[in-house]
Amino acid sequence: MAEDRTEGERLTELAKRRGYYFGSSDAYGGTSGFYTYGPQGAALKSNVEDAWRDRFATQEGNMEIDAPTIMPEPVFEASGHLDGFDDMLVECAECGESHRADHLIEDHSELEDAETLSPEEAAEMISDLDLVCPNCGADLAGQSVEDFNLMFETNIGPGSSTPGYLRPETAQGIFVEFPRIKEYARNRLPFGVTQVGRAYRNEISPRKSIVRTREFTQAELEQFIDPERDEPDLSTVEDVEVLLYPATEQEADDGDYVETTIGDAVEAGTIGNAWLGYFLGIAQEWYERIGVDMDRFRFRQHLAGERAHYSSDCWDAESEVDGDWIEIAGFSYRSDYDLSKHGEHADDDFTVFRQYDEPQTVERAVVDPDMSVLGPEFGGAAADVKEALEALAERDPDAFEGENVTVEADGEEFAVPTDVANFSVEEQTISGEHVTPHVVEPSFGVDRTVYTLLAHAYEEDEVDGEERTYLSLSPGVAPRDVGVFPLVSNVDELVDLADDIVADLRAAGFSVVYDDSGSIGRRYRRQDEVGTPFCVTVDRDGLEGDGEKTVTIRERDSGRQVRAPVGALADELDAVRRGDRTFDGLAEEYDELADA
Amino acid sequence: MAEDRTEGERLTELAKRRGYYFGSSDAYGGTSGFYTYGPQGAALKSNVEDAWRDRFATQEGNMEIDAPTIMPEPVFEASGHLDGFDDMLVECAECGESHRADHLIEDHSELEDAETLSPEEAAEMISDLDLVCPNCGADLAGQSVEDFNLMFETNIGPGSSTPGYLRPETAQGIFVEFPRIKEYARNRLPFGVTQVGRAYRNEISPRKSIVRTREFTQAELEQFIDPERDEPDLSTVEDVEVLLYPATEQEADDGDYVETTIGDAVEAGTIGNAWLGYFLGIAQEWYERIGVDMDRFRFRQHLAGERAHYSSDCWDAESEVDGDWIEIAGFSYRSDYDLSKHGEHADDDFTVFRQYDEPQTVERAVVDPDMSVLGPEFGGAAADVKEALEALAERDPDAFEGENVTVEADGEEFAVPTDVANFSVEEQTISGEHVTPHVVEPSFGVDRTVYTLLAHAYEEDEVDGEERTYLSLSPGVAPRDVGVFPLVSNVDELVDLADDIVADLRAAGFSVVYDDSGSIGRRYRRQDEVGTPFCVTVDRDGLEGDGEKTVTIRERDSGRQVRAPVGALADELDAVRRGDRTFDGLAEEYDELADA
Repeated sequence: MAEDRTEGERLTELAKRRGYYFGSSDAYGGTSGFYTYGPQGAALKSNVEDAWRDRFATQEGNMEIDAPTIMPEPVFEASGHLDGFDDMLVECAECGESHRADHLIEDHSELEDAETLSPEEAAEMISDLDLVCPNCGADLAGQSVEDFNLMFETNIGPGSSTPGYLRPETAQGIFVEFPRIKEYARNRLPFGVTQVGRAYRNEISPRKSIVRTREFTQAELEQFIDPERDEPDLSTVEDVEVLLYPATEQEADDGDYVETTIGDAVEAGTIGNAWLGYFLGIAQEWYERIGVDMDRFRFRQHLAGERAHYSSDCWDAESEVDGDWIEIAGFSYRSDYDLSKHGEHADDDFTVFRQYDEPQTVERAVVDPDMSVLGPEFGGAAADVKEALEALAERDPDAFEGENVTVEADGEEFAVPTDVANFSVEEQTISGEHVTPHVVEPSFGVDRTVYTLLAHAYEEDEVDGEERTYLSLSPGVAPRDVGVFPLVSNVDELVDLADDIVADLRAAGFSVVYDDSGSIGRRYRRQDEVGTPFCVTVDRDGLEGDGEKTVTIRERDSGRQVRAPVGALADELDAVRRGDRTFDGLAEEYDELADA
Repeated sequence: MAEDRTEGERLTELAKRRGYYFGSSDAYGGTSGFYTYGPQGAALKSNVEDAWRDRFATQEGNMEIDAPTIMPEPVFEASGHLDGFDDMLVECAECGESHRADHLIEDHSELEDAETLSPEEAAEMISDLDLVCPNCGADLAGQSVEDFNLMFETNIGPGSSTPGYLRPETAQGIFVEFPRIKEYARNRLPFGVTQVGRAYRNEISPRKSIVRTREFTQAELEQFIDPERDEPDLSTVEDVEVLLYPATEQEADDGDYVETTIGDAVEAGTIGNAWLGYFLGIAQEWYERIGVDMDRFRFRQHLAGERAHYSSDCWDAESEVDGDWIEIAGFSYRSDYDLSKHGEHADDDFTVFRQYDEPQTVERAVVDPDMSVLGPEFGGAAADVKEALEALAERDPDAFEGENVTVEADGEEFAVPTDVANFSVEEQTISGEHVTPHVVEPSFGVDRTVYTLLAHAYEEDEVDGEERTYLSLSPGVAPRDVGVFPLVSNVDELVDLADDIVADLRAAGFSVVYDDSGSIGRRYRRQDEVGTPFCVTVDRDGLEGDGEKTVTIRERDSGRQVRAPVGALADELDAVRRGDRTFDGLAEEYDELADA
């Protein structure tokens, strides 16, 4: 039965039933593109965020900030989102349903990059291809195609004079505050700044459960570097093995994956930038540690057409679910684009001072116009003429080679004798220069990572002749650390000890599920579906004798059990969660139950 | 010099300089009511959230969910926010500045609850009081006062057909999903559901830095209970001492605080509900543990006029800063208001089935109309007449006492012989009934908690004849665990060991600051201002001899130092962070430096 459904459908059903995630506001008919994480999903997501934060902020010594999700319009004028962050919208005249024009065209033609079409071209293709509304079947020919901006708009304060937008990416909150953040880094490159938080895109047609939603969580790192000076420490990742799918292979007829190491790929130029290589390396190790199935994972390079014009190289981390590859992170070399744009639009300094190793002597053209001549000659325009001469000297010193020099001021031309301008070339000693840092950006989709972990952990097998579903989540991110059960609920001794164990483990920081209802087998099945790595059962055998009380510990995937003293539980569970202990280790240390 | 400024002003300056928080988008002129947490503030805030989560979710065995911040309009129709979540707005005709009418009136009259005025009354008072614009001084008389809804509005999807709002509180995300969440609790009351996340209020005039902003973070717990059956376990908090400011004392001429315990206050009825008492108790202990100065903390009961009509009791946790009391949490008994409202508006079941201890036998009036008579008699109206009879039997059995019974159907009256209606009273056995759970809500403002911690930790003293500022933050929430310094930066041995220590401590999960610039005294001062509890310095003395290498550990508040082996650092810092170790303990264990 289950086999008729796709992996994604089975996961969605389990996710809803066991409290991972479900469509929001269902009681009011639902809101397309919005999902709520239930108790398990919220814990898994939070654990993934903590694991990311540990690896990409704490371990790297980067700074994490926490900026508002609403930002004012000028920010997005500068970033380009206000003008360019659009999808192509076509509306059905019959049923009113909105569709993405480029997706419709791609679904019904050979075209693979329909988003590069103009709205007019897209409308023409829709007519030429005789496309119909996927919802009601009505003809879409003749419908206009429009650019639809994906930002959610709102108004800040009373009235509509201050439009604000929900940020479409967390990154802008970092870029905008660069002038301040660089001070916290004491103006020394390189440094990295991270942010984990909500981002919003008003998708025309959201789909695929938590993979493409209108509100989602990103974990982004902006690494600010001096491109001429800063190199990453590749030594820690050079031996990391990765599966790459470079642009050249994607374009070749017999293209294939490249199995290589980070060190070799950077050396060979397959990865175009050492910083990108560094981040792909730590990402590969991080994904593996949190439980992504690395046989269903690859790094795919953007094709030249996919890349922004300012980006010299870009890779996506992709995971496979149901035969589709899902982009779960992007690694982009963004050059100085972001900071330059804000530097142009905003009233602040988005550069860092690069000190030279030795002070340098440079030649600089200057003028010192004789105002006692200019004043009587040009009257009110004299000051402007002076400024124009200064600007010209800096821009084009050669202009001062003749007898007269001509400048424009206030829309008029003025001819000034060169000796009145007092042109000269001076030597100046400068200790450094202002440079706009380049940005290397690893950007992770937290929801898609959660989705991948669940899809890759989803398993079905047979136990005692019955079908079983379980989530083989890594103990490092599983939402619950342990289930604790009294074998039966009507024996005070068992219930009391179980209660004590729950209290002790919670005090030690573990997320504990207590369950005393139904057969022990049913309770194990419930936690199998939740993905709880271990269940502890308090039984009568464990209370016998004068020695320390014992309980059984059952492992989720194998169903194997050991009997261990109550006092050892916290330390063992902690070691398991850190990845320092496996069930085999437990089985060596304690008695394994024969017929569990 | 520093003394001219208020505590709040000095804190704001430090917060900006050291990376706690600052006004957002300053490069674009700033956006009033929005703040960005810098590296220190983001870490402190995150630590406060984790501490809250541990105490109010993990330790209590509650479920945490994570819902979207954008919710559709019907949710807020039901919750009452669309109609009633307003402030009174008056705009200056001269300069265009918006003001809160009630605040202006309160500032210039004896009135203390101007928000209870109608807009027309407020406009009249503004004229009567000759109020002027605080911004430009222009006369406000004659200006209209309007209700301004505080929710940020946006549109979901293309077009404007689906309005959405940024949630004004995280709570609605829990209430709306109650029909699903109760299944995760297996329909058994009591259970608690938490959420930590952003909430939004489009304040007319935001103020006081991070105390009243337009985007903020809440940590809310909705405790769902059966009011007739469920009692909290007060035994764990009954001896907790609290400072209460009950409504009666606030209203009395010589009113004063009441020093008491939770147990006594619930017993005496000062706190009107045991669940509220329970949560005040754990909140008191929690605030103390994270570092609120409990001499500047109180619980203030809402006056009858402050409470919502459905709430039987409500208390605020308040902290004192600059002589003002700031509401940092609210504890409200909300009865069945929230779930009832959603039950009325939404298409789902917001009740829980309350099983009786024993099945009960009840009498129930029923009809079984003879359709072979009704059909020919009433034709097409027969089915409606039958339904009307059934409804009447349930509503008013006495109506069936006469010979005929009259019902209305389709706007017409129909007389039916009682024996045709086949009225009877049956005995039914029922096993329980559906009840709408009551809600007890502890709601915490995370930003205000952060502000309180910083204000209460802000200290100034004199060290070596120089003024010093430091933040005496608790090691459990301080943004950085430790600073690590090589005494000088040009001796490889010192730098290498410092690097190793940084790497080891980061791998152990500590947030570490490395600093090698400036004198050691200046580096200590920097970390004092950041509030880093300990600094570790690698010096030549520590490398001498054949034994284990040692470093100095300096305590922030006292400046005292010990010399301890490098290998002991991680365990000692961990114990300090957990609250199991103080500096005195370190001084007993290791050699204290005499003249540090």
